[in-house]
Amino acid sequence: MKINCDMGESFGLWVLGEDAVVMPALDMANIACGMHASDPSVMMKTVALAKANDVMVGAHPGYNDLQGFGRRDIVMSAADLAALFIYQLGALQGICQSQNTRLSYVKPHGALYNAMMKDDAILETLLDALQRYDVTLPLVIMAVPDHARYQTLADKFGITLWFEAFVDRAYDEEGRLVPRNVPNSSHHTNEAIQRQADQLIDQGSVTTLTGKKIRIHADTLCIHGDGPFAVPTAAYLRNKLQKKAE
Amino acid sequence: MKINCDMGESFGLWVLGEDAVVMPALDMANIACGMHASDPSVMMKTVALAKANDVMVGAHPGYNDLQGFGRRDIVMSAADLAALFIYQLGALQGICQSQNTRLSYVKPHGALYNAMMKDDAILETLLDALQRYDVTLPLVIMAVPDHARYQTLADKFGITLWFEAFVDRAYDEEGRLVPRNVPNSSHHTNEAIQRQADQLIDQGSVTTLTGKKIRIHADTLCIHGDGPFAVPTAAYLRNKLQKKAE
Amino acid sequence: MKINCDMGESFGLWVLGEDAVVMPALDMANIACGMHASDPSVMMKTVALAKANDVMVGAHPGYNDLQGFGRRDIVMSAADLAALFIYQLGALQGICQSQNTRLSYVKPHGALYNAMMKDDAILETLLDALQRYDVTLPLVIMAVPDHARYQTLADKFGITLWFEAFVDRAYDEEGRLVPRNVPNSSHHTNEAIQRQADQLIDQGSVTTLTGKKIRIHADTLCIHGDGPFAVPTAAYLRNKLQKKAE
Amino acid sequence: MKINCDMGESFGLWVLGEDAVVMPALDMANIACGMHASDPSVMMKTVALAKANDVMVGAHPGYNDLQGFGRRDIVMSAADLAALFIYQLGALQGICQSQNTRLSYVKPHGALYNAMMKDDAILETLLDALQRYDVTLPLVIMAVPDHARYQTLADKFGITLWFEAFVDRAYDEEGRLVPRNVPNSSHHTNEAIQRQADQLIDQGSVTTLTGKKIRIHADTLCIHGDGPFAVPTAAYLRNKLQKKAE
Repeated sequence: MKINCDMGESFGLWVLGEDAVVMPALDMANIACGMHASDPSVMMKTVALAKANDVMVGAHPGYNDLQGFGRRDIVMSAADLAALFIYQLGALQGICQSQNTRLSYVKPHGALYNAMMKDDAILETLLDALQRYDVTLPLVIMAVPDHARYQTLADKFGITLWFEAFVDRAYDEEGRLVPRNVPNSSHHTNEAIQRQADQLIDQGSVTTLTGKKIRIHADTLCIHGDGPFAVPTAAYLRNKLQKKAE
Repeated sequence: MKINCDMGESFGLWVLGEDAVVMPALDMANIACGMHASDPSVMMKTVALAKANDVMVGAHPGYNDLQGFGRRDIVMSAADLAALFIYQLGALQGICQSQNTRLSYVKPHGALYNAMMKDDAILETLLDALQRYDVTLPLVIMAVPDHARYQTLADKFGITLWFEAFVDRAYDEEGRLVPRNVPNSSHHTNEAIQRQADQLIDQGSVTTLTGKKIRIHADTLCIHGDGPFAVPTAAYLRNKLQKKAE
Repeated sequence: MKINCDMGESFGLWVLGEDAVVMPALDMANIACGMHASDPSVMMKTVALAKANDVMVGAHPGYNDLQGFGRRDIVMSAADLAALFIYQLGALQGICQSQNTRLSYVKPHGALYNAMMKDDAILETLLDALQRYDVTLPLVIMAVPDHARYQTLADKFGITLWFEAFVDRAYDEEGRLVPRNVPNSSHHTNEAIQRQADQLIDQGSVTTLTGKKIRIHADTLCIHGDGPFAVPTAAYLRNKLQKKAE
Repeated sequence: MKINCDMGESFGLWVLGEDAVVMPALDMANIACGMHASDPSVMMKTVALAKANDVMVGAHPGYNDLQGFGRRDIVMSAADLAALFIYQLGALQGICQSQNTRLSYVKPHGALYNAMMKDDAILETLLDALQRYDVTLPLVIMAVPDHARYQTLADKFGITLWFEAFVDRAYDEEGRLVPRNVPNSSHHTNEAIQRQADQLIDQGSVTTLTGKKIRIHADTLCIHGDGPFAVPTAAYLRNKLQKKAE
């Protein structure tokens, strides 16, 4: 099981996240592509940092909305969305190519990620675009109990799915994340985060906010790159997964 | 000798140029990359149009300045410029890749083009970036009497140069374009444009605004894709170059 | 009854609409504020043109989305929307102030206009923001058979409403515009446009696409500033309304 | 003598500066207007914070360049610059008006500030624009030994100048700031900062990096709102100036 984290979310003079500290603990760096965060210079430095730490580079494309950090829904045509998506994959791949490395996967960001999970038409637009751009790139989506439905769609386009689970967010009984405006939607102690990580890794399940245990098969665990838990969580997971692998 | 023209300079709802009419007459389409003009959807359509007409796709990167159409100098560090340049090459290459085609060359736009011709440090930044991105892509620069100086720089980075001349702009005695704010800086009759084209093609020279004949070796002729002379000029050149090739 | 038209929708080098030709026929110029179209320089020129023709300046604020021309829904918080709205009113008022003139009314643009008509929470956000900014500025909304509902909301905030009808768009039986993707949603002859204008002016009604006559009380008629019907429609309305006023 | 500080330089999710901590110590808040930093929502909050602390609101307009934070020169026409400048004043005044407060002065930002100090044509463009917008608004410029030259220009347009000095930056013998890339261009201890502040307040002079004492008449002292010295410097100055006033 791999550790993924959003990286390269600074923009111009504005710094977000502790990329240099967190990167060494990761397997996969989801790198913003200049539409919801980042700019060409930040992307150049973030790819260099990933490469220096032997971390896979993933494209992390989002809606074109810096002020909203890609967290606001923007309703657009399938053609516009496909072009916006491919533009970002190409731009990051260009940055990678100039450093003799390459994209290894794609994980949509924010409102686009949520839209893809909720609306099959949007997911199909992304799958179709990915098929046209590079059918060998896996798409990271959320690990959910009803993942077969997503797998069927992806198979239609020949795209590999990598399922990700969250170690610091509370789940509801459908296996979706409890919205951020609900109390206790995020875990705020290292203990709670590590308990959920252990359960995901050792048992393939999570315990919902309501106390129910549900099965979640995850290929990768997502951590957050800012805040007080970023570094201890990354270190804990790195250590646990290495021991497990030995 | 090939015909090149800036294409894909529309943005969102705003239309610029008669791309569908001009494209069939071209050999090389310089396609804007979303920074000074265009957007991912316009790029997608413009690459499709170039491909349908069997026209080479060139990246036409510019400064990040939609309001100024990339015609205003923006002073930036070499690292920022290199990243901005590579970002645009990658983005357009991504759009190409999704249509099973590829970039064939690079021609900087507007203020960046002028800066590269005037300032060796900026030209070296672009050459170095192009070497890192893809050393096989030729760079289009202005055909000038003192082209050896540019060739020496390009050779240092292993980059092929394609020299372009302009059929509808007046030249000064140094072989530079007469600035647009000077009277008669542009030719405003088909006769004047065709006369300059004939001279460039048949004699490898231009007659300056002051009446002097200077030698200009051009690999490609640049025409403008909007205005009343776009279509007749394209047709004239296409016809003349074809006859010459027979 | 007054004639209003969207003006100042050019951006940088890109030109949209025939403002100089249409402006003299107008009473009210809805001037874009730099978020979905226009830029400070275009605004400066458009306000000057309105002033020279003794046309009222209205703010035409939209979502922050140049590529989408403000026609795409962007879901945002009430606080963000209010700030975005007031920012645009202030910016245009600043441009006016530098020319010794002032805003006379506000008409939201595109997706924001549609959202305000459909979603009371969004309309209340705009009314509340307008009350805080300048309670004397009227808000232009769509003239609909059920306008009492909108009037009640506006009264709560002390805002005057000006109701507008469209002379070149087909109506459905609820008194809403037939969506653009439906056949015959727009009138494409001068006769059809003038017939609908006559009916709105003389009888206070429109005939729906389905042939039903419905009552519409309009304070102002909206025309479109580009396309082949802009100039003849403006001239026809100007002439008719002047005769009526005599 | 008043204390001024750049405030409201966050953007969207990105936070810059400790506005809530520094604001209470200020007399004047230079508030970014959405072009080089900030957005309408940040501006709304920053004006509210200034108002709650009874701090004057100043417009802090800059070039339209978020990525470059307004620190990169953008060469533009006088008409474009004037419109861009007035747009920002109006936008911030709109935000103020919605909170029953108003602009009290204007201080250009970053590259625009430097350009205005170096190039009389740019300063005249700003003075002329300010005269047209609101001739009663003072313009903050740098306090320099040769300030008479600036005063003469400002008098031509009827604009009041407020001269500002810097407590944490080293000066050269012409009374200009030592560029940031020169060693010791900034003071990095509270002692050094307070020594320069004392000298500016008590003697109307600064000691240059080369050890020479030069006369500087300042109406206001500029401090920086981020970094470890922001809060102690603000507190020290507030205390010293209050004692002096008693």
